[in-house]
Formats: sequence, structure tokens, C-alpha cells
Amino acid sequence: MPSRKSSIKVGFIGYGTVASGAINILRSQQELIARRLGTRIDIARVADLDIKRDRGIALDKGLLTTDAMDIVKDPEIDIVVELIGGTDHAKGFILDAIAQGKHVVTANKALVAAYGEALFAAASEKGVDIGFEASVCGGIPIIRAIKEGLAAEQINSIYGIVNGTCNYILTKMLEENRDFSEVLKEAQALGFAEADPSLDIGGGDSAHKLAILASLAFGTPVSLEDIYTEGVEKISPVDIAFADDFGYHIKLLAISKRIGDEIEARVHPTMISNDTLLSNVGGVFNAVYIDSEALGSTLYYGQGAGSLPTGSAVVSDLIDIARNIRSGSPGRVPPAAFVPAARKPLRIKPMEEIESLYYLRFMVKDQPGVLSKISGILGAHGISISSVIQQGRKAVGVVPLVMMSHRAKERDLQLALSEIDRLEYVSGATLLIRVEGEDEE
Amino acid sequence: MPSRKSSIKVGFIGYGTVASGAINILRSQQELIARRLGTRIDIARVADLDIKRDRGIALDKGLLTTDAMDIVKDPEIDIVVELIGGTDHAKGFILDAIAQGKHVVTANKALVAAYGEALFAAASEKGVDIGFEASVCGGIPIIRAIKEGLAAEQINSIYGIVNGTCNYILTKMLEENRDFSEVLKEAQALGFAEADPSLDIGGGDSAHKLAILASLAFGTPVSLEDIYTEGVEKISPVDIAFADDFGYHIKLLAISKRIGDEIEARVHPTMISNDTLLSNVGGVFNAVYIDSEALGSTLYYGQGAGSLPTGSAVVSDLIDIARNIRSGSPGRVPPAAFVPAARKPLRIKPMEEIESLYYLRFMVKDQPGVLSKISGILGAHGISISSVIQQGRKAVGVVPLVMMSHRAKERDLQLALSEIDRLEYVSGATLLIRVEGEDEE
Repeated sequence: MPSRKSSIKVGFIGYGTVASGAINILRSQQELIARRLGTRIDIARVADLDIKRDRGIALDKGLLTTDAMDIVKDPEIDIVVELIGGTDHAKGFILDAIAQGKHVVTANKALVAAYGEALFAAASEKGVDIGFEASVCGGIPIIRAIKEGLAAEQINSIYGIVNGTCNYILTKMLEENRDFSEVLKEAQALGFAEADPSLDIGGGDSAHKLAILASLAFGTPVSLEDIYTEGVEKISPVDIAFADDFGYHIKLLAISKRIGDEIEARVHPTMISNDTLLSNVGGVFNAVYIDSEALGSTLYYGQGAGSLPTGSAVVSDLIDIARNIRSGSPGRVPPAAFVPAARKPLRIKPMEEIESLYYLRFMVKDQPGVLSKISGILGAHGISISSVIQQGRKAVGVVPLVMMSHRAKERDLQLALSEIDRLEYVSGATLLIRVEGEDEE
Repeated sequence: MPSRKSSIKVGFIGYGTVASGAINILRSQQELIARRLGTRIDIARVADLDIKRDRGIALDKGLLTTDAMDIVKDPEIDIVVELIGGTDHAKGFILDAIAQGKHVVTANKALVAAYGEALFAAASEKGVDIGFEASVCGGIPIIRAIKEGLAAEQINSIYGIVNGTCNYILTKMLEENRDFSEVLKEAQALGFAEADPSLDIGGGDSAHKLAILASLAFGTPVSLEDIYTEGVEKISPVDIAFADDFGYHIKLLAISKRIGDEIEARVHPTMISNDTLLSNVGGVFNAVYIDSEALGSTLYYGQGAGSLPTGSAVVSDLIDIARNIRSGSPGRVPPAAFVPAARKPLRIKPMEEIESLYYLRFMVKDQPGVLSKISGILGAHGISISSVIQQGRKAVGVVPLVMMSHRAKERDLQLALSEIDRLEYVSGATLLIRVEGEDEE
């Protein structure tokens, strides 16, 4: 039933960075939000284990509690915002809130990626909304774009720069010709990278976001385990320089494509042409490029993290749900973008079945016959080479030998590489970077 | 009341390019749309004065009519799509449809820019929805981004490349160092420019779109007359080359900024730094860059015109309204992004009050004292110069003298120019291009 109640009441579970951003915006933009929504959104209660710390926000101390259940059970609260992170407690609180008939907003990508199906089903069954715009690319309204803006679109592919830390590191490596580890240290000092950066630089964070985006775009469950994930740790300045020679930039991309009734879903460093907009997304910024049937190319760009940008996405979900509360239309858009019964599990291609162009950097002893031996092994596996860069002799014994392949199957390539990497004049494992673009035959 | 009717029925008034695109999508993606929406969207009737022409779509001839009122008055039809263009008849049909309690979708930017206020008021009063996503930037979901994605945001400024024809011409002029008129002819031959291109190249089309965007972003009525509008006709390859020397690209930008309780709204060729994403939006593509309070920078990119991209925006509005019909929530988001009573007319700054950096190209006789005279006049009007390019002597008597100014008031600049252009050794009117960017003091 439509409700003309005088305000919408929100409870926060978790009072960290994102919650502070959202609370800041709700307070500073209260009038603006009311002018758009037609009513106020009031902060009814904020729960955190630590309610002593000063967050620099003049919030009435009486609103604070250390018990999340004070929020879940408060009959006055319309929407529960879960911002504690992690999956165990967060999942429990959200399911409890849904069971109490409350709408939910979360920024928890790990939770949505791992348990989205269960949460969405619970929300749909109870007839409440669950908003998770903040879980992917912070403030870029990408979830809303896929669920609503592109509602008429058969989506063909998604290419996302969805991790600001990796993008910052790769941008700095390119612009300043510096080493990965050195730039990572700097990013940590500047607060752009976590003390334990493995989830970011290993690609796991991007995989969480891709699982969510691909699931919405293609109407199929996509689990983390389905996503091939490779991080940026092995990229060195020499690869960035070679990429530049070929007209490419290296980005950590989250890629998902629909090919007939199958989809690909993978996260790895990728070379993309340096005349594309995506390749020019620098620093901590995020962007998602979507190719769809009628619309062709669209791209969405903005800040993917941070207190205020992510907080803004949380508040945009609160406004969206408040509109549903006021017009009596919860569940107006299904959480997974498709009506639950109309979702169709699509097969997710194992990595060895994908086809791509490849950049290969072999480290070889500089001696006659190497090029012919390596290209012979590649050829025997059906992989043909479009260009080669073999640098002149150096004082040191080991030099890079770089090849770009024509389109090839991942399985064939891996078989060839395992053979090549055993050759006595090949030093260490070959570096492989997948290349997105047209094959020039 | 929520309605679980078995399908949503749509009537089209106008069966031209955009209607063909929308009808194509509704037919080819009928199953996909139903999987997202939960019901089918059926084409009930299509009206056009010419119902004989073959549009390459196998539409049942019985659905065609030459009388738009057959659609407006059909009690079976839920949503009327107006795609005839122009303002007179279109406005009449839309108001009639609203009076009949029908929801409306339009791609008519001229109509929404000129009569949006009246149409929105009629729709709000009658409790029906009016969708106009297709009126700005074709398939880019920019209206939805402003109204919903950025609902929590105080928007500070909008910079849009919103006319594909102009962007195509400027891109070709830059890439191929060619003349405006030559590229325009080519664009006409390729179908990227109209036979009468004046609305595009004169900036009028961009002004229509800016009126709509600024009105939504800032919650104030903005009329076409409020928008200073200048086209791209005077830009020559020499300006594009000078811009490049200074690190800028020239784009036709639709700009609106909020400064306190006033806004600026203007369309003109603009120099922007060539390391921005916006400056790298090439060809017929459109993009809108928004700076807002919590989110900072976001950018939305895609195809701004064409049958399928614009048709896709029409269908996304149909799906949005169908969701409201099914959940009984028409009017869920106010058409103008703000609750009608909460809109506040803001003063729109007359052009002479704005401040900007300026690029000035004087055509001068190459003789001693010219530089000192011109910079003297500028100085007397309080305009200081940050750089000068004075090319060496040439055989011809008239050479370009180029200056970049520090931040200055438009009024002061125009006064100075009117004085300078009267000097005997200055030939013809000086070319002025506004520059967006930081002033380097």
C-alpha cells in the first residue's frame, strides 16, 4: 500500500568509511533529497561495535548502539543498511532484517557475489527491496544502468576497470616507468591500497564485482568459482613499454561475454588499444564499457571507491527504496534484473575454451635457433604469430623475446607454453597477457 | 492500483526512424523484455500519415492507421509513444493522451525543451508518467542517471558533447586537418548530417538538450532563450592546430554550472584539455560529464542518435512505465526529477556575466606595434594574457596572432574585442573560443 508517512527511517549496521559517507550525505543533503523524494530520510539508529571513536560527524549519541539487533528489530525502521563487510554476520543481519519485513541496502560485494541468490530470493519472497548499487564501482550508477537504463538491451559483453587500486598502480607504472612493487608501496602510503593488498592486486575484488555484473547482465547465476582470476603482480615496466609499442595499454579488466548460450567471465591483465576511452581511464577511477545489441557501445565512468562516492550510491538506493515505499511498489524491479522464474542458467565456459589474441614475453638466452624453435612449437599447436619483437644482443645472457599471436585457443596456448617453458634456453615462466581487439589477418 | 494484466499495450504516433528502431527492438527482444519485466509489451497500433512506405518491418498491416486519434482514444492502449517531432501537433497529441489517462513516451527534445513544464504539470496532475529518455543523447541513460542514479547528489556542473554531427565534424577536422565545409559535405553524404544542418552545427540542437539536462539537474525551469548558443561554423583547422599546441581539443560543449543560487547555461565551441576523457570522445559519439558534490566526476558515453540507439531509449522508458503500471506506482519519480512544489527558479546568468579563460585569434597585418596595441587594449579592460603565439612573417600581409587569457569576464572581453576589431591593422572579426580548465596564475 502506498504510504504517505512523514519520513523514511533508516538504520545503519556498521559505522565505518562508507557509512560515514552515507550519513554525511543524508545530513548535508537532507533538504535536497526531500525536494526530490517528497519526504525526508531520517537516520533512526546506527550500530557499531565501536561507538566511542570520533568519526567527525555530529550525530546524536543517543542514536548509537553496539547491538545490531536493536536495528533489525526496531519496528520504526523501514530500511536497514548493512555496511559491516564480511559475509557471516552481514548475511545473518540481512536475512533477519528481511524476515522482519525491512528493506535492505548493502555495499558488500563479497556478500552479494557469494550469497546474492539466497538474499535476492529471500527479499523477493518477503516482498521487500534489496539495493546493492554501492557494491560495484562505488558511485557509478552501473547497477541501475544495467537493470533499468539497458532494460531493452540484449547485452553482448562487459569490460570493466572495477578496481581503483590496480588501475592506479598500472597508470603510475605507465606514466612514470616504475616498478610494480615500488608503486604499490606508494599507493599504500597514500591510502589507495590496503595494508594487505592481495584482494585488490590479485584480482579477487574485481571478480566479486564481475560476478554481480555478469549475473545481472545475462540473467544467470555466476559464482566466484566460475571466474578465472589473475592479478597484476607479474606485470613489469618492460611489458607496459612493449604494449605501448604495439599501440596498447595494459589494464586489469573484468570481462564477461555472451556467446550464444554460453558466457565467459574472467579477470586478468588485458591489453586494449590505446585509442579506446577505456584505455584512457587513469588513476583510481573505474569505468565499465558495455556492448549491447541495439545500443552498441556505452561507457560509465567515475570513482569506484571512497567514503563519499560509495556513500552516495548507498543513499541513491535509499531514495529508490523510499520511492517504492511511498508509492507502494516494493519489488518493482527484480533484484537480479530478471524475474526470478525467467532466469536461465547459462554454461560458463572454462578458461581453456576461450579464444583470444595473446602477448607473450619469453625470456630467452640470446643464441641462434631460439626464435625458430619457439615459433615452431607454437605453430605445432596451431598458434600463428602476427608480430615479433626480438631485441638486439645485450651484455646479459637473457633477453626478452616478444610475440603477438593471432586468435588462438587458450588450451592450445597453454600446452605450447608448457612445452616452451621446459626448453633449456628459456629462462623462467613466459609472461602471457591476453589482448582484446580485432585480429588482423 | 497494481495491475497484473497479461500485457502492456503501446501505440505509436509516428513511424519514422526512431519508431522503426523501437518497434524493431520490441519485436526482436520481446522474450528478453518479458523476462525482465514479467509481462509482454505489445504494439497495439501505429499511426503515420504515410502507411504505404516499406520500413522493412513485418508489422501486421491491420495495426496501421493514418489517424493519430485512433491511438489517443483507444481504451486498450496504456502508453502512447509520440515520435512525429515538431512541437504543434506533438504537443496536442500528448496532452490529449494525458487527458485520456494514458502514459506518454517521447523522443522530442524540441518539444520537451519548449513545453516540458506544461507537459510535466499535466502528467503530474493526471497521475500518469511521461518518459523522455530518448530526447537527450539517444541511448545513453543520462536522464535516468540524473533523476535516479545521482538522486543523492548536489550537481555542480554538466559538460556535454550532445550533438553527434558536430562532434563528427570536429573529430575529422582534427584527425585529417580538413576544412569545416568539406567535412560537413562528407557528413551529409554519409547521412551523419541533415540536408539542412543548421540546427546541428548552429548549436540549437545542443541547446534543446541542455535545457532539459539543466532543468533536471538543478530543479529549475530553463528555457531555450536562457541559453547562449554559438555553433561550430567559424572553427577552422588553424584553430584546431593552435589548440593542439596548447594541449587542448575543441569540442562543441553544452555547459551548465551552478554557482550559489545562479546557474550558467551555454552552448559553444570549447577548448578542453586533451588529457580528459571528454576530449577523447570522437566521431558521432556523445558523452556527458557531470561533477557533483559527493560523487565527484562521472561520465556517461554512447551513441547519441540513430534508429536503434534512440529506439532503445524509447523502449527503456516503456519498460519503466510498464513497471509502474504493474506495481501501481505511476508518478513514482517526478518527471522533472524534483517534486513540483519543491522546484526553485534559479537566476540564469546572462552571458556577459560569466567568467572564463579565452583563446583569441586575431588576424593582423604583420607590422610593428600590433602586439603591444592589442595587449594594451586587453589590459585596459582588465584582461591579462597567459600566452601568445605570434607566427613569423609570411608573404601574405595578414597573419594570425593567438593569445590565451587568464580568467576574465565575458563583458570585459567583448568590450575589448569590439575596440580591437576596429583597429585598422586588424582584419575581420577576432575568433574567440572559451577554454574550460584551471587558470594557471
